[in-house]
Amino acid sequence: MTKTPDSAVRSYIDQHEAEFLEDLSAWLRIPSVSADPGRAGEVRRSAEWLVAKLRETGFPVAEVWESDGLPAVFAEWPSGDASAPTVLVYGHHDVQPAAKEDGWATEPFEPTRIGRQLFARGAADDKGQVFFHTLGVRAHLAATGRTAPAVNLKLLIEGEEESGSPNFGALIRREAARLAADVVIISDTGMWAEDTPTVCTGMRGLADCEIDFYGPANDIHSGSFGGAVPNPADVAASLVAALHDADRRVAIPGFYDGIVELTEQERELFAELPFDEQQWLKVAKSGGTLGEAGYSTLERVWARPTAEVNGIWGGYTGPGQKTIVPAEAHVKLSFRLVAGQEVENVRKLVRDWVATRIPEGIRYDIAFPGATRPCLTPLDHPALQSTVRAMGRAFGQKILFTREGGSGPAADLQDVLGAPVLFLGISVPSDGWHSVNEKVELDLLRKGVETSAYLWGDLAENWQ
Amino acid sequence: MTKTPDSAVRSYIDQHEAEFLEDLSAWLRIPSVSADPGRAGEVRRSAEWLVAKLRETGFPVAEVWESDGLPAVFAEWPSGDASAPTVLVYGHHDVQPAAKEDGWATEPFEPTRIGRQLFARGAADDKGQVFFHTLGVRAHLAATGRTAPAVNLKLLIEGEEESGSPNFGALIRREAARLAADVVIISDTGMWAEDTPTVCTGMRGLADCEIDFYGPANDIHSGSFGGAVPNPADVAASLVAALHDADRRVAIPGFYDGIVELTEQERELFAELPFDEQQWLKVAKSGGTLGEAGYSTLERVWARPTAEVNGIWGGYTGPGQKTIVPAEAHVKLSFRLVAGQEVENVRKLVRDWVATRIPEGIRYDIAFPGATRPCLTPLDHPALQSTVRAMGRAFGQKILFTREGGSGPAADLQDVLGAPVLFLGISVPSDGWHSVNEKVELDLLRKGVETSAYLWGDLAENWQ
Repeated sequence: MTKTPDSAVRSYIDQHEAEFLEDLSAWLRIPSVSADPGRAGEVRRSAEWLVAKLRETGFPVAEVWESDGLPAVFAEWPSGDASAPTVLVYGHHDVQPAAKEDGWATEPFEPTRIGRQLFARGAADDKGQVFFHTLGVRAHLAATGRTAPAVNLKLLIEGEEESGSPNFGALIRREAARLAADVVIISDTGMWAEDTPTVCTGMRGLADCEIDFYGPANDIHSGSFGGAVPNPADVAASLVAALHDADRRVAIPGFYDGIVELTEQERELFAELPFDEQQWLKVAKSGGTLGEAGYSTLERVWARPTAEVNGIWGGYTGPGQKTIVPAEAHVKLSFRLVAGQEVENVRKLVRDWVATRIPEGIRYDIAFPGATRPCLTPLDHPALQSTVRAMGRAFGQKILFTREGGSGPAADLQDVLGAPVLFLGISVPSDGWHSVNEKVELDLLRKGVETSAYLWGDLAENWQ
Repeated sequence: MTKTPDSAVRSYIDQHEAEFLEDLSAWLRIPSVSADPGRAGEVRRSAEWLVAKLRETGFPVAEVWESDGLPAVFAEWPSGDASAPTVLVYGHHDVQPAAKEDGWATEPFEPTRIGRQLFARGAADDKGQVFFHTLGVRAHLAATGRTAPAVNLKLLIEGEEESGSPNFGALIRREAARLAADVVIISDTGMWAEDTPTVCTGMRGLADCEIDFYGPANDIHSGSFGGAVPNPADVAASLVAALHDADRRVAIPGFYDGIVELTEQERELFAELPFDEQQWLKVAKSGGTLGEAGYSTLERVWARPTAEVNGIWGGYTGPGQKTIVPAEAHVKLSFRLVAGQEVENVRKLVRDWVATRIPEGIRYDIAFPGATRPCLTPLDHPALQSTVRAMGRAFGQKILFTREGGSGPAADLQDVLGAPVLFLGISVPSDGWHSVNEKVELDLLRKGVETSAYLWGDLAENWQ
């Protein structure tokens, strides 16, 4: 019987909250700014502080992991139950740069509590969200009477996330065996809003593409030749235009083949989110919406693949007129991908499609500089169901779902470990990530602790 | 009876050719480089030299015309016949820069005869071609026994053509009354080839267009917003792509309305030209042809209107990737026009068409910076018929037709004077215009003299 009485969890948290916040504040005082080479020592100190704290928490294994850059932290607490699933929690202990003179109301590395908010660089991104798991697992043990968590619990807390994770891929490949997990939980994200708790279930992938078009050997006179030779800027523009059909669907044959479509349930749950399109357009600084027919704005940015032109250039771009057929033109494209789309297959589809659209007299080069795979955990995945139940108990209300339209290294974990990824975060948009006056809402932080406390038992109980 | 016995013309030319070449050489020695402010005095000396020579030729009126820039020359020789048509011959007395060290085999301003070629800057462009009219009109008089030409003959010889004719429009508007003519003959062009004499019957016009597209207030993240807001680079590209239909016809509604179509006769005559498409592609430095379905390459560049993208730019164009929805994009377009297309109407069609193609959320500005009207003289125009007959007598072979795909101030003369324009030139592509070792073929120069000698009588006789 692993189901925890919620009151026991809450009373344990009540007893330990002050100490928990003191510990978190001590960690927040360490200015672990990974982008500042002068603070590399502070990043290391942060890692060592965390290792010590995790050992104190009870993790039998807690170590600093070296990489070619700044150190990460790894910890492991085996369940002892032979059938227990293994969970890997990901977060990071480095922070964005911050200085009071940037406009902070308080010292960024002197955590300051004002009412039910705690202000400090890293309070939300990401030390606060890593740290709620430490009290969470203790509350889980206290409420269940266990001496080890109901799941095999692993933590991987990176030290270079705010610097673009340059060594993360190599690190997780090197340590794949020790990181092996049945599910990965990313605690480095947020919720829809303070009164709308949500779980993020996936991120879009990304495939970059650059195409260079070459026509005449140099710019030629459009009076002498215009209308009779192909114009590479026209070919580039026509290719960009042809990326979408009249319904704003990507018109590359096969592009949608095999993608994981939104379920009716997901669409209904997305629609329950209190989405204000006018407000969203203000944030987008855009004057209107445009996207794939048949889908809402949220569905378009979260769950539909796209083709976007990020840059285009060719011919004369200076002041005045130059009546030429340009020698060359260039486009930078990127494709956001969703689950079911494989990067290599999308590249092949793009390559084949482009090849059919180049008139005689135009040469071209096509390159695919970078890519990130999409990740998605279906709503009926047991780990997601457990997370939703755990959050529901903590928040006392219905948990909705989001996705992330951007692309990130979460997919690396999914790919290297072969495990589904989900996103458990309690931050809210007002928390000031990468900005001044970063803070964490203490009521939400506590709900994070509670969620963590309920989650491991639920997961173990419902894992098949 | 104004028909000249051809043998009389030829024997007159034989007698005066040496003197004619000495005079031309004297003129070619004056380095009338309009682009070089240090040689403004030489341009004036060239104008004064020409005025004196035209008086000596017999023109009762020959004067230097001042403009806000360098001087032009005007001359007039009334026919005396009340019903005689008035012809205005256009040419220019300024030349391109030249220096021996650019790679000339001879001194560019020391005319050098080698066999039947005369090398000098301006030998073909345009002093030689202006000058053949002086011996031509004398041969016309000698062979017909007239004391004044059979037409009212006017010459306008510009002094700034090689500098872009910055004051030409103002000059001809100011002097429109004295320039009034029934037909304008431009002697500043060439023929298809030495063994293929041709008359050019028109030039395409030009309308420039610039469009600026504005989307989000600044570049925004394509992960967060891509696929749900309009992308101005996509809108720009789609507009460029939509300029043409699948037959490479300009797809702007009404664009072809009222244009003067090629006649079957013109198409047949164009097809008689010894056109080598592979050679033409080498000159175009292009790897293939592409243009309006149903027309040959020559027809496409000479006689069909076009829409060309001269420049396009928007979004990120530097190294690497930037996954954005760009804030803005820009295109520079130009439309080549043919007879029957009015600039203002084309601008209106473009403006209306663009307005229907901008999605909500994109703002745009459209501008039409410059324009030149097209000009065209139909094959059955009596002045053209006369020119063809005169050339036919001089060359002893069939005269074919060309047009010019580019756009130029000839249309200004057409518009200001309300007279048709045709192009009588005896230069050939090897003459080295604007290049080193410019020369004129003396046999062709003589045929120019002969054509001029036959033309005025034929014109007067056949003018209705």
